[in-house]
Amino acid sequence: MKKRFSSYIDQLQDRISSALEEIDGAARFQIDNWERPGGGGGQSRILENGGVFEKGGVNVSKVYGQLPEPMKAYLKVEQGDFFACGISLVIHPNSPLVPTVHANFRYFELYDNNKEVVDQWFGGGIDLTPYYLFDEDVVHFHQQCKSVCDAHDPAFYQTFKDKCDRYFWNTHRNEARGVGGLFFDYCRASDERSIEQWFDFVTAAGDAFLDCYTPIVNKRKDLPFGPEQRNWQELRRGRYVEFNLIHDKGTLFGLKTQGRIESILMSLPPAVQWKYNVSPAPDSEEERLVRVLQKPINWIKQ
Amino acid sequence: MKKRFSSYIDQLQDRISSALEEIDGAARFQIDNWERPGGGGGQSRILENGGVFEKGGVNVSKVYGQLPEPMKAYLKVEQGDFFACGISLVIHPNSPLVPTVHANFRYFELYDNNKEVVDQWFGGGIDLTPYYLFDEDVVHFHQQCKSVCDAHDPAFYQTFKDKCDRYFWNTHRNEARGVGGLFFDYCRASDERSIEQWFDFVTAAGDAFLDCYTPIVNKRKDLPFGPEQRNWQELRRGRYVEFNLIHDKGTLFGLKTQGRIESILMSLPPAVQWKYNVSPAPDSEEERLVRVLQKPINWIKQ
Repeated sequence: MKKRFSSYIDQLQDRISSALEEIDGAARFQIDNWERPGGGGGQSRILENGGVFEKGGVNVSKVYGQLPEPMKAYLKVEQGDFFACGISLVIHPNSPLVPTVHANFRYFELYDNNKEVVDQWFGGGIDLTPYYLFDEDVVHFHQQCKSVCDAHDPAFYQTFKDKCDRYFWNTHRNEARGVGGLFFDYCRASDERSIEQWFDFVTAAGDAFLDCYTPIVNKRKDLPFGPEQRNWQELRRGRYVEFNLIHDKGTLFGLKTQGRIESILMSLPPAVQWKYNVSPAPDSEEERLVRVLQKPINWIKQ
Repeated sequence: MKKRFSSYIDQLQDRISSALEEIDGAARFQIDNWERPGGGGGQSRILENGGVFEKGGVNVSKVYGQLPEPMKAYLKVEQGDFFACGISLVIHPNSPLVPTVHANFRYFELYDNNKEVVDQWFGGGIDLTPYYLFDEDVVHFHQQCKSVCDAHDPAFYQTFKDKCDRYFWNTHRNEARGVGGLFFDYCRASDERSIEQWFDFVTAAGDAFLDCYTPIVNKRKDLPFGPEQRNWQELRRGRYVEFNLIHDKGTLFGLKTQGRIESILMSLPPAVQWKYNVSPAPDSEEERLVRVLQKPINWIKQ
């Protein structure tokens, strides 16, 4: 399973970075290989100042060794070795009319002292952060998420959609980071589902990423926008930073366990503003976005 | 003491905001009064898009009531009422040649069920975050800090300077947020020093703020700079955001205890950039700054 998922994320990284380069048309991903002192390493692929994408990272990491202290505490295990691998991506487009997207698919193994696997699970998800709402884009995104889920379990979509809304919640602002998508974690073998079946689901979700996102990019990337819309995008990106640095478990965990800082913080947007007490004009598109973020809705009629 | 310090911070807020407006020459502080549902409130004064200052806040808050849960846990008390008041300021200048400054002076009282004061203490500090190093400016700033300290105790400066270096440390980057200054907390009455003497020290530190900072602003505000220096400033401001959102106890505490979000986050810089894996050119001024931040030094020859 370790090998299977490990090769899967490598080829997914290739597929996604090629497809995004093709859409971008101007910039290429720069490849950065890094090693982890305690064992393992990864490959970061970063694109900056592109024709369509202002900053994007499509990163793979495969790390192993002794469990770092904060991970022991978090997982409530006394000791042992671990293996973790995953692909993590965040794309910040130039245009405020094209949403930011984030996806992550990961696999974790825990070993006992005889190097036997004592626990293994998948986690991950995909979510969208628009700066302007095109309802049909959000519906498309959620519809793609739902199709992947429905092929595996009719309960998945609603469960993982709700988890996503709960997870990407900026508590201190009382609003969602974006319009959600899917979020799942600790997907372990059970009577109902083997680890192979979870592999099938998680890789199907990975395979769906480009179908979720690229049609939206293609539809909106050439629309004209003005400096006020760009301004709004940079202000809202501030909320993205707030979520990632204050609340996101993955980010904080990575920082605590001496992960590779630049690969972790590649998620931060390229240009961001904070102004005091900004509130959008009544009945504006900006206000509509905020209203929707304050109360997550079901985008797909059941 | 509650009343004395409370009036002190009001007049200090007046003095500082007037002096900064005078230097700025273009923008005025906007006054925002707010109330805290659990008791108390505050006055935020925010200046944006000024002639010299891009964004600055000089805020006073005076809050009281039942201790919120996270505060009980933090202070290790079971229950009780509290009173807390303080002045907090952060100034982000336009020019990358003028440093950002932060100062905070606060007083805290804890009560038992009979409303008797069972604990009281002062805290606070002042620290400087330059984007380009003018050694004489940093020496001036520390010299002013030292003069205030020396008038009260010959051990204060080194103790509070070291605490400041330790506190404003971006662990995940292994570097200081800035070039430090003073940091003190839990300054309680003892055999050596009454609470009145702490009041004298803390208000002397507050009184010294303008002397610490404004000569530096006046000296550097009209120096020419280019887009590359502005770029560097915005990138370094990213580290300021990282510290405040990941590590700063005051910020995280405020967010947890449902403080007034906009007043807490006024500390975040107006325009910020994150680029992947930036490293300054060898032997550049930018590299010298990073080197100094990685290993705090004593700016004043003893």
